Amino acid sequence: MVKEIINFETSPAEYRHWKLNIDDAVARLEMNVREDETLGPGYKLKLNSYDLGVDIELADAAQRLRFEHPEVKVIIISSIKPRIFCAGANIYMLARSSHAHKVNFCKYTNETRCAIEDASAHSGQRYIAALNGAASGGGYELAMACEEIYLVDDGYAAVALPEAPLLGVLPGTGGLTRLVDKRKVRRDRADIFATLAEGLKSHRAKEWGLIDDYFPSSKFQAAIAARARELTAATLEQKTGPGIRLNPLQVEVSSAGREYAYVSLRLNREKRYADLTVRGPEANQPGTPEEIHKLGDGYWPLRAYRELDDALLHLRFNEPEIGLVCLRTEGLIENALAVDRTLAAHRDHWLVNEIILHIARTLRRLDLTAKSFFAIIEPGSCFAGAPLELALAADRAYMFSDPRRKVEVAPSPMNGGALPMSNGLTRLESRFLGDPQKVDKILKAWTRLDTEAANEAGLITVASDSLDWDDEIRVAIEERTSISPDALTGMEASLRFAGPETLDTKIFGRLSAWQNWIFQRPNAIGEHGALISYGKPSQPKFDYRRT
Amino acid sequence: MVKEIINFETSPAEYRHWKLNIDDAVARLEMNVREDETLGPGYKLKLNSYDLGVDIELADAAQRLRFEHPEVKVIIISSIKPRIFCAGANIYMLARSSHAHKVNFCKYTNETRCAIEDASAHSGQRYIAALNGAASGGGYELAMACEEIYLVDDGYAAVALPEAPLLGVLPGTGGLTRLVDKRKVRRDRADIFATLAEGLKSHRAKEWGLIDDYFPSSKFQAAIAARARELTAATLEQKTGPGIRLNPLQVEVSSAGREYAYVSLRLNREKRYADLTVRGPEANQPGTPEEIHKLGDGYWPLRAYRELDDALLHLRFNEPEIGLVCLRTEGLIENALAVDRTLAAHRDHWLVNEIILHIARTLRRLDLTAKSFFAIIEPGSCFAGAPLELALAADRAYMFSDPRRKVEVAPSPMNGGALPMSNGLTRLESRFLGDPQKVDKILKAWTRLDTEAANEAGLITVASDSLDWDDEIRVAIEERTSISPDALTGMEASLRFAGPETLDTKIFGRLSAWQNWIFQRPNAIGEHGALISYGKPSQPKFDYRRT
Repeated sequence: MVKEIINFETSPAEYRHWKLNIDDAVARLEMNVREDETLGPGYKLKLNSYDLGVDIELADAAQRLRFEHPEVKVIIISSIKPRIFCAGANIYMLARSSHAHKVNFCKYTNETRCAIEDASAHSGQRYIAALNGAASGGGYELAMACEEIYLVDDGYAAVALPEAPLLGVLPGTGGLTRLVDKRKVRRDRADIFATLAEGLKSHRAKEWGLIDDYFPSSKFQAAIAARARELTAATLEQKTGPGIRLNPLQVEVSSAGREYAYVSLRLNREKRYADLTVRGPEANQPGTPEEIHKLGDGYWPLRAYRELDDALLHLRFNEPEIGLVCLRTEGLIENALAVDRTLAAHRDHWLVNEIILHIARTLRRLDLTAKSFFAIIEPGSCFAGAPLELALAADRAYMFSDPRRKVEVAPSPMNGGALPMSNGLTRLESRFLGDPQKVDKILKAWTRLDTEAANEAGLITVASDSLDWDDEIRVAIEERTSISPDALTGMEASLRFAGPETLDTKIFGRLSAWQNWIFQRPNAIGEHGALISYGKPSQPKFDYRRT
Repeated sequence: MVKEIINFETSPAEYRHWKLNIDDAVARLEMNVREDETLGPGYKLKLNSYDLGVDIELADAAQRLRFEHPEVKVIIISSIKPRIFCAGANIYMLARSSHAHKVNFCKYTNETRCAIEDASAHSGQRYIAALNGAASGGGYELAMACEEIYLVDDGYAAVALPEAPLLGVLPGTGGLTRLVDKRKVRRDRADIFATLAEGLKSHRAKEWGLIDDYFPSSKFQAAIAARARELTAATLEQKTGPGIRLNPLQVEVSSAGREYAYVSLRLNREKRYADLTVRGPEANQPGTPEEIHKLGDGYWPLRAYRELDDALLHLRFNEPEIGLVCLRTEGLIENALAVDRTLAAHRDHWLVNEIILHIARTLRRLDLTAKSFFAIIEPGSCFAGAPLELALAADRAYMFSDPRRKVEVAPSPMNGGALPMSNGLTRLESRFLGDPQKVDKILKAWTRLDTEAANEAGLITVASDSLDWDDEIRVAIEERTSISPDALTGMEASLRFAGPETLDTKIFGRLSAWQNWIFQRPNAIGEHGALISYGKPSQPKFDYRRT
């Protein structure tokens, strides 16, 4: 059985679609998609349209800029192709993709754009979209993920969201939400814009708030450069490099799973579940930013969560039949807590800050993964501090109970705000919406909780007697993997994000759910659906009944 | 062409499934669904399961209690059938319904439950769920719409959400959202509960917050009665009856549409759009609560919005091919504003309060209707005050422009908070999220705005010169109705609800969108899907790939 495995690792030297140039505090990230360098067969990436392969490079660039180039304050996203910025996700790719790939593709590109916004907000790396030509669909959505958008005024260039009128689908990468919730475009104008295939040019686009400004072709580059200088000068934060290098992950791949340095993914395909184990840090981790910098990407929290992130992406795209992931940890609680103390103490150091932000993004990726997660808390585990978030992110946590073999979990200050969910709350706050004083109590009263105390505190779901343990876990796994995977996806998306909503949760909840619905509808993907008919001589035929 | 037209009007004398008894301040609303009295063929409503016909009666009862029985402070929802409260939406009905009917059915039942919560919150009519037996699926969701839930402890009775494990769908009437967001049940417990077909009984159900308390069978009725007395005694508000009677709407039905006293619905089926016209009030409307009470349901704002509500429901269920509704008004602005002044001045009177709350619910029904809405503002129209909300609720507003024939719109204090959207904001606040000072300016600076001023103020989308008017409207209608209806539904659901999210928007946005997705999936509705297989000897067969 040969399967195409999608690889999520890359580096600037390997980029096929982007060019990354760094000039002191200003980076230029230029799109120049190679038509034939596609991830799959049967389509060409014309007009800077993109597939997942293009976005994997963009995600990598945004990630590397944070770790490898902390001196960069402004990133200008532009295109090398004349008169075209980006035509968005490739339509022929979408039309021939499975439903699951379409959905996972949109989720990943959304996460990349959220990571760009996270860098603007928390890393002092602000993104400017310099639209040197048409920005259409996903191209304009990418622009909206940037803090500022500038459009060339050449009589042709326009921004557009043509998905609804041309393709019968939604802008799938947060476009509608960013339009009205981030850029706060008036809803009736947004309605016109999102149904106008040709989009809007300079003057009207600015008047409606779709762009921040426009400049004639002759002055465009100079105006963007001037704006970048203004922004770098206005940035108070003075991060001093050098950065650290993000080396390729070392992973041993087999049919049984993936073995990283600190992460193991072991697949039980027959039973449709996987064990995902994070091994905790060794003793004697570095205690100062200088030592951490020296250790670089070998430092446990950076390496372990990079590996975890890769494993999650692998599970999403390459292991669709795995419905349940058992989250496990191995190691010593005191070692995990020691790392947390170091991270918490030195958060004002740029590298420590980036490491924490990266852990937070990885955990959000877990929250947003359409698999069930059970945390399995056994003797020898180290669900302590940041790794405790794995148990809090899980849909359920099972904890071993035996007076002769004590198991413990341990909160740390890292559970108190450093690792927010997409809804803006910590996982403890989300968990105890109905009993908020428990959050404080857990953070203040305990250093460690055994099974009884953890159960009493509400940190675990089930405390299971050691004699029943194996049976209980086995039955829970069997029951979970027997349920309709679609019902579980919708259920988990509803139960995981109680409480407030943010731009991110609106994108991943409301907008994505609607897009997923539309991606199932004959009007999009049927024989005469708009997505399938695109580029063909025949017009789409709609069933006009509204739902 | 014969079509089954669903009728949304009923009255207690006609109820087939509910019994409404009123004893001073306490009403009992008892479910006793007649198996054979279904809205459609091919299923039986066993075990107090329901179809739309059952819910139309429930919605009617909740509505009448507000207007006809203002003295009622507590409504006890229970069942007459022994050992069964309610088994939820009828599964055979769902399995044989079209996708559009399933979606519209869930939306309507959700709106009924939101109306129950609205009565608890704003009308001093608090709902208690007295679960004398099993409350399963939609039965438990109905209970969660009540302020308090009590369960009989007879060794059998349980609350349950068996949709995911048994049927491969979600609890479609707000259950998951109310579980974690209203009752704030811990997410891992909610996860277990929503995958446990048999549900949970008294003790565990109370411990997890699924119910408020439980009582043994022998003491159940007495305990509920005592709680009702406590609640009535604690209600400070002393509304004095008598109420007013809600008489049947007078409507003339033809193939061309529906003609009510103040509302006309005219269908252009060939072009897939409808004109929905609200005629404004006559001069000399009553100015005091006493006069309004005397006029009863003939009072313009009550009658006009009851008619509008009925027309919207008719459009949703009975006219699926109509994709666009042009909202029009006819009448004198001064008459509309005079009514608003009366409503605003006497809001502390129970009947005026109910009328305002009813207008607000009707407008929210419009916001949530999956049709495009264009407001058409022409000479002779009266988009003023509450009717101006029709233009603000519309996806676009087109306003006629001709210096020789002035058209005006007019804000009133009613646009300033009395008629909130589901997101908790006014339509003006939602419109001007990016420019909030405009809201105040509009409410304070103007009594009337002509086309130029309305355009300048941002109240309309397009000001169209009288010479181009007919063409512009015709082209706009043709363009709109040519777009994929599914893309429009997803787009409008995203653009209409910018800003904050509430329980209601989470239910109608996130949860409903996921449910609609699942209702399209082969794992639910395919030949071997769980919804289709229910009650058959064969087990469902799932495609286990997670999406």
